[in-house]
Amino acid sequence: MAEKKMWGGRFRQKTAARVEEYTQSVSYDRLMYRQDIAGSMAHARMLARQGVISAQDAEQIVDGLERIRQEIESGQFVWRAELEDVHMNIESRLSELVGDAGKRLHTGRSRNDQVALDFRLYVSDAVREWQELVRGVIAELVKQAEQHVDTLLPGCTHMQPAQPVSLGHHLLAYAWMLRRDYDRLADCDRRTRVCPLGAAALAGTTYPLDPASVAEELGMHGTFRNSMDAVSDRDFALEALFCASLIMAHLSRFCEEMIIWANPNFGYIYLPDAYATGSSIMPQKKNPDVAEIMRGKVGRVYGALMTLLTTVKGLPMTYNRDLQEDKEPFMDTDRTVSASLSLMAGMLSELRFNTGRMASVLRSGFLNATELADYLVGKGIPFREAHHLTGAAVALAEDRGKPLEDLTMDEFRTISECIDDDVYAVLAYDAAVARRRTQGGTGPDSVRAQIAELADWLE
Amino acid sequence: MAEKKMWGGRFRQKTAARVEEYTQSVSYDRLMYRQDIAGSMAHARMLARQGVISAQDAEQIVDGLERIRQEIESGQFVWRAELEDVHMNIESRLSELVGDAGKRLHTGRSRNDQVALDFRLYVSDAVREWQELVRGVIAELVKQAEQHVDTLLPGCTHMQPAQPVSLGHHLLAYAWMLRRDYDRLADCDRRTRVCPLGAAALAGTTYPLDPASVAEELGMHGTFRNSMDAVSDRDFALEALFCASLIMAHLSRFCEEMIIWANPNFGYIYLPDAYATGSSIMPQKKNPDVAEIMRGKVGRVYGALMTLLTTVKGLPMTYNRDLQEDKEPFMDTDRTVSASLSLMAGMLSELRFNTGRMASVLRSGFLNATELADYLVGKGIPFREAHHLTGAAVALAEDRGKPLEDLTMDEFRTISECIDDDVYAVLAYDAAVARRRTQGGTGPDSVRAQIAELADWLE
Amino acid sequence: MAEKKMWGGRFRQKTAARVEEYTQSVSYDRLMYRQDIAGSMAHARMLARQGVISAQDAEQIVDGLERIRQEIESGQFVWRAELEDVHMNIESRLSELVGDAGKRLHTGRSRNDQVALDFRLYVSDAVREWQELVRGVIAELVKQAEQHVDTLLPGCTHMQPAQPVSLGHHLLAYAWMLRRDYDRLADCDRRTRVCPLGAAALAGTTYPLDPASVAEELGMHGTFRNSMDAVSDRDFALEALFCASLIMAHLSRFCEEMIIWANPNFGYIYLPDAYATGSSIMPQKKNPDVAEIMRGKVGRVYGALMTLLTTVKGLPMTYNRDLQEDKEPFMDTDRTVSASLSLMAGMLSELRFNTGRMASVLRSGFLNATELADYLVGKGIPFREAHHLTGAAVALAEDRGKPLEDLTMDEFRTISECIDDDVYAVLAYDAAVARRRTQGGTGPDSVRAQIAELADWLE
Amino acid sequence: MAEKKMWGGRFRQKTAARVEEYTQSVSYDRLMYRQDIAGSMAHARMLARQGVISAQDAEQIVDGLERIRQEIESGQFVWRAELEDVHMNIESRLSELVGDAGKRLHTGRSRNDQVALDFRLYVSDAVREWQELVRGVIAELVKQAEQHVDTLLPGCTHMQPAQPVSLGHHLLAYAWMLRRDYDRLADCDRRTRVCPLGAAALAGTTYPLDPASVAEELGMHGTFRNSMDAVSDRDFALEALFCASLIMAHLSRFCEEMIIWANPNFGYIYLPDAYATGSSIMPQKKNPDVAEIMRGKVGRVYGALMTLLTTVKGLPMTYNRDLQEDKEPFMDTDRTVSASLSLMAGMLSELRFNTGRMASVLRSGFLNATELADYLVGKGIPFREAHHLTGAAVALAEDRGKPLEDLTMDEFRTISECIDDDVYAVLAYDAAVARRRTQGGTGPDSVRAQIAELADWLE
Repeated sequence: MAEKKMWGGRFRQKTAARVEEYTQSVSYDRLMYRQDIAGSMAHARMLARQGVISAQDAEQIVDGLERIRQEIESGQFVWRAELEDVHMNIESRLSELVGDAGKRLHTGRSRNDQVALDFRLYVSDAVREWQELVRGVIAELVKQAEQHVDTLLPGCTHMQPAQPVSLGHHLLAYAWMLRRDYDRLADCDRRTRVCPLGAAALAGTTYPLDPASVAEELGMHGTFRNSMDAVSDRDFALEALFCASLIMAHLSRFCEEMIIWANPNFGYIYLPDAYATGSSIMPQKKNPDVAEIMRGKVGRVYGALMTLLTTVKGLPMTYNRDLQEDKEPFMDTDRTVSASLSLMAGMLSELRFNTGRMASVLRSGFLNATELADYLVGKGIPFREAHHLTGAAVALAEDRGKPLEDLTMDEFRTISECIDDDVYAVLAYDAAVARRRTQGGTGPDSVRAQIAELADWLE
Repeated sequence: MAEKKMWGGRFRQKTAARVEEYTQSVSYDRLMYRQDIAGSMAHARMLARQGVISAQDAEQIVDGLERIRQEIESGQFVWRAELEDVHMNIESRLSELVGDAGKRLHTGRSRNDQVALDFRLYVSDAVREWQELVRGVIAELVKQAEQHVDTLLPGCTHMQPAQPVSLGHHLLAYAWMLRRDYDRLADCDRRTRVCPLGAAALAGTTYPLDPASVAEELGMHGTFRNSMDAVSDRDFALEALFCASLIMAHLSRFCEEMIIWANPNFGYIYLPDAYATGSSIMPQKKNPDVAEIMRGKVGRVYGALMTLLTTVKGLPMTYNRDLQEDKEPFMDTDRTVSASLSLMAGMLSELRFNTGRMASVLRSGFLNATELADYLVGKGIPFREAHHLTGAAVALAEDRGKPLEDLTMDEFRTISECIDDDVYAVLAYDAAVARRRTQGGTGPDSVRAQIAELADWLE
Repeated sequence: MAEKKMWGGRFRQKTAARVEEYTQSVSYDRLMYRQDIAGSMAHARMLARQGVISAQDAEQIVDGLERIRQEIESGQFVWRAELEDVHMNIESRLSELVGDAGKRLHTGRSRNDQVALDFRLYVSDAVREWQELVRGVIAELVKQAEQHVDTLLPGCTHMQPAQPVSLGHHLLAYAWMLRRDYDRLADCDRRTRVCPLGAAALAGTTYPLDPASVAEELGMHGTFRNSMDAVSDRDFALEALFCASLIMAHLSRFCEEMIIWANPNFGYIYLPDAYATGSSIMPQKKNPDVAEIMRGKVGRVYGALMTLLTTVKGLPMTYNRDLQEDKEPFMDTDRTVSASLSLMAGMLSELRFNTGRMASVLRSGFLNATELADYLVGKGIPFREAHHLTGAAVALAEDRGKPLEDLTMDEFRTISECIDDDVYAVLAYDAAVARRRTQGGTGPDSVRAQIAELADWLE
Repeated sequence: MAEKKMWGGRFRQKTAARVEEYTQSVSYDRLMYRQDIAGSMAHARMLARQGVISAQDAEQIVDGLERIRQEIESGQFVWRAELEDVHMNIESRLSELVGDAGKRLHTGRSRNDQVALDFRLYVSDAVREWQELVRGVIAELVKQAEQHVDTLLPGCTHMQPAQPVSLGHHLLAYAWMLRRDYDRLADCDRRTRVCPLGAAALAGTTYPLDPASVAEELGMHGTFRNSMDAVSDRDFALEALFCASLIMAHLSRFCEEMIIWANPNFGYIYLPDAYATGSSIMPQKKNPDVAEIMRGKVGRVYGALMTLLTTVKGLPMTYNRDLQEDKEPFMDTDRTVSASLSLMAGMLSELRFNTGRMASVLRSGFLNATELADYLVGKGIPFREAHHLTGAAVALAEDRGKPLEDLTMDEFRTISECIDDDVYAVLAYDAAVARRRTQGGTGPDSVRAQIAELADWLE
């Protein structure tokens, strides 16, 4: 008694209840009810086509499952923890509704291949939704880029101003990252939406099943090749978690920029009210809460990837109960990724830029120094000397407290006799940007070409 | 409209609702209600002692908070998502209950130091419960070890039989791992249970607070030294997650052994029914589900550690909203660790060993070969030659299909003339084990000394 | 002085040297010399084609680079740490060899796009080698499977014997995992082998470059679309690290099985001498060292993935020096994956199976119980009752100390009157396996079909 | 032949060489030579004290080991890869030097406990060095804090200016983080520096060893309690890797701040030349390379932690060769942590702050708004109204383009009649800071108290 208490702690319930709580999955795998029902319907129809069960049985099963779906979606369905998982809950209710026919549904199928099918469909459905949400963010980035082809700001390397760039170009950098995410998700979906039904417990089945037709009905890309692999493979979930990790990494980078840009020392953006919290005392203050939380949530998705990688390490053939730990990290990741992409699109659609502030920072950062050096090289001065002279010009301008383009011709001539009136056109920031017109450059021609390519793709 | 849908997906709610859902924490931080109330009570009493609020105000506040606690525990309390977190829910209810006095509770305190306090208390309370649960597992290991001081089995390195060991000794290896976990948790608690109250938003407070007395009332080890650090530090949670990771790593090792030992080729253990699932067809079959799930759950705790490590990377001073992502990984870990330790203790208390099977495997593995080599060395044969002769003896025994100890003296003499009748005593497995009597060895004296030391510690 | 010592510790060198050591990369990025030279040759030729430099300059550059390659490969090249990285070391030597022409090589290029190009080529080259090595392991698995289509062993779920399976089928499960790895690597390569040259520092270039022709010469799939993305993108390396993580996870699973199978309680395999260590005392003992180390190395590759995921978290645009930390985790992973795949193929080619031991274990595990139940169902007995009767039969056989198939007809009749002489054919293990002949099942027809499909693919 | 090539790839060497390369450790574990030699000397002396070997033997062994140490440190020692590890290399040389006595050194010891001892000593030595380096960084932070008790800058939450704080206070926040790191390392060292010698291969030894005296000679805190645990425990290395992860997380936070502060929009710091790279064109530009690389390296240490956590997951008793993978991640971490702490101390010692810029930013951010609200509350205005009035005052000041403290009394009176001349004293930033004088606050009294406490501790 006393001993029992020692390890009992807050777990006052009896052993059975604690074990049940530890091993049940219905509290989360019920989210897969749609996939479970769709899979069972397709299985029943195939069994009938193959003559394993009667057409009448199949019809009863499909009707019963349809009714269960309605019960679940209307909130009438009673989930029972003691039935452990979504599969047994639905199967048990099906038997109540259609009697013996329901029991025949499980012919040639085992829990092992059934759960693999359901989870593959669930992951694939999520991946496809992520794709749509990724498209949504790209669409907002393109819209903002269209407005800001000609808005200039200091482009940074090492977080130090380096060269002027187009704000549109800067935003499109994220669009291209997400474009890769979209492709990666498509590849993942191709490997995920593969039908494992027919693998049974681990060895295949003695019934004359037709897995290909089930796969076709469920819109899957193909069928399993090896039953032992089919019931123990979770590569698809790992691949989806990796894709999610990269998406969140990309979002975290943009969030970081928004947080820095919202600091008044930068002051580049006005955060939309709905995505920030204010202060009644300091009306100008806005905390970028959504961007911060989103940046924080990247950890959670990396963590989920690490969770499942750890779980599969060193697992012998075939199904091991460890694999039950695959769903919660994925479902949590799904919530995080879907909500983050959706909110990012919303935030982007309402984000406004302080272009005046960007322009003023641009002018104070000597971001056209490279242009002057190129100008001098163009005048025949060796590269190294051109650099040296440019350094002297910047030092002079800094000393006089003005940008390079405000140096007088007399001042320029103290640097080099080669400098002429045409230098001012070269130093103009917009001209500097426009000269970078080759593919992928920050010039307006290139930015518009990127917009066109992405717009085409969005349609 | 069409575009909105593009990124809208399943998020049909309006922006505000989606943002609220993304940024709220009350759905999980309500678990900290006890800590929040205890902290507020201590703060109120201190404010009164320092003369910042009246004694009457403090009394009203404490009474109101006590009533809120009862409302929560009786399920009457109405949690409101739009109030975002546990703190605002309680504060708001307090104002309803005691009016202006409730508003004065927040004097000299900010959400930033309040949430730090609550979370520190929550983590510390969990860590202390883990300590008790760790003790519980150790107690069960010691009880089993007491029963099996003299039960022998093949001790393995590289998963290959190497030398006979005592089963009690083998089990105590896990007790010592957990003993370290206990100490590590104590160190973690010392750093966790430190009071940050008085740090306010980030800069400290202008009120003459007395943080030390609050710390004392809450049973804390001390107070913060720097307000900026106090509101942005989450080291304590990371340390607790690391301790949890090691605990789960240790449990995963034991689970691996139980899973292997439950395979009939080993057949060393009988799993208690409550911790396994059977098969109606094969009554002898038992799936070690609990051990498998527990081994699988190590991933989840490693993942939580990685989650928070990622979140804190590169965060500038001071509080950033990213830190809100600290609680869910910890709370999930708490559930996992508490349940796993509790179930491990339960499983151990009911675990039975097939000692006959162990003995029979022991006899078939030439695990006394090292003893023969030592015997020959004792007879003055050089080490290298002794090894060589032992190899020949094993080969002979294998050839005759019997263990070393069943070789006749004639057979032994074909190996070496030095071998005499006393060899049989040396080859006895229990004697081999008993000879390893120095501290920490597998001999019964050493095992009993370990049991005594751990039993002392348990009391 | 005294203080300096305090943090000086073993770092006796002067500040400059310590900083140089911390920031240099030539100690590891020199491994990219082939990619760096190939990229520079292609760039020089393109510059000439575009008329940016003269044909003569280009020729001199290419000749100089070719000579540098020879110097490096013959060990004559002097790497200088003070030149920091592979690029500067080669550039500096080029200037020595060809003078001013060498200096013109850097026209329209920056260190940022150059390092991105080199690393993309390096990762792609590694990925392609991994693909070949994966093919090699698949080839060995197929060869072993061909030998063991009809070898049976107990197929496990939950590490408990469940149904008999073909050893060939079991081995092919791993072939299909690796087949997916191969595809995933191909997708990764497609996204990796994209040319970033022309992105310059971050904004694109003012020179009329032709990135597409460089990409073509280097066998790349296309060119960058956005210069800011191009210089800061490391998604390709992350994707390669993820692919590597899955490969190692798959290998770790097989290693786990080999380690368990090498334990004498299983005794399923004979490890090839070269891949194990023995014991002079116990000639029958073999430690599966290579399999253990390979299982251990999965951690290292997971760790490298986590390393780079952490590094890219929250990085603002564009190139940040943090990104220099991309190469070492990848290079270490490359060594691990290449060596592991290569050794796994070697180990597989020499692995021998103790098929007699497998057969004997099979007979003692009641693995044909499911067949008996199916037999009874075939005789018209309801499923649930059939299961119950089978359980009784197993209990009886266990009681008599023999397998099911050795029960006499009289003994069977005590279980059920329905059982007839045809039961013995049903209980035969090979017949049980042969019945699972549908696609992906463990029957010989299915296994041979898998072998044929993989053999086709290998060619 | 053709097939061999398929998986051979760049591995042209014969199988044996490839296996040797894969399984050897001497290329990195040779770094433990000092620990190996110290451990062997202590073991030899103990063997002599216990009468297991002669005093003369012990003397010869100690002399031989001393000579080997000198050979290694002078670069004369020939490391041989075919001898696999540091232990065999030294043992083999010892036999050459002192003959049979050398062979007796291994009495009562096995490779398993020897490697555990060496690695424990190595980790402990590293941990102690980290402690000294942590002290060094704290010392530099304290020195800078002493200079900047009264330097004010905008304290941020959510990266938004919130309240003025002392720069000294801000810097000391990091000192307190590192102070915790120091304590954590001390706890880790206590658990690391425990002697496993006497555990032998796994079961303990039959020789009458005295592990306690070995532990004492090696300055260890105690001895192992269970031989099976002793040879398979790597908790100490994991704990050290976790401590390292937190240290790097703390450094990454400071690096992030320095990188942001070095951006001209902030302009708070002048990076020392040795820790940054410049631009010949833009003399005012400085890339914070060291801070960036250091921030990037946090990933590497997190990765090492994840590496070893993965490796130990699910390992059965006792020593498994997987554990050989413990050393490289630790050694890489040791290099990273030691160099990072050392460079951070150096960078701090030379860092200069642009206090003028901080002051000017402070004045433009309405950071005294909270003070005005408190002032109004002090005049008897209810909290909520005081907030509202403060918001109006800020809006007015913003409208007039000046800070709050430059509003005229007439302007203030338009906000509230309660405002009087004493408001200007309240709004002074230094006064606002000084009012936060309670323990841990940002006021100069508190900052000086922190400095004093840390200075005491440093001595």
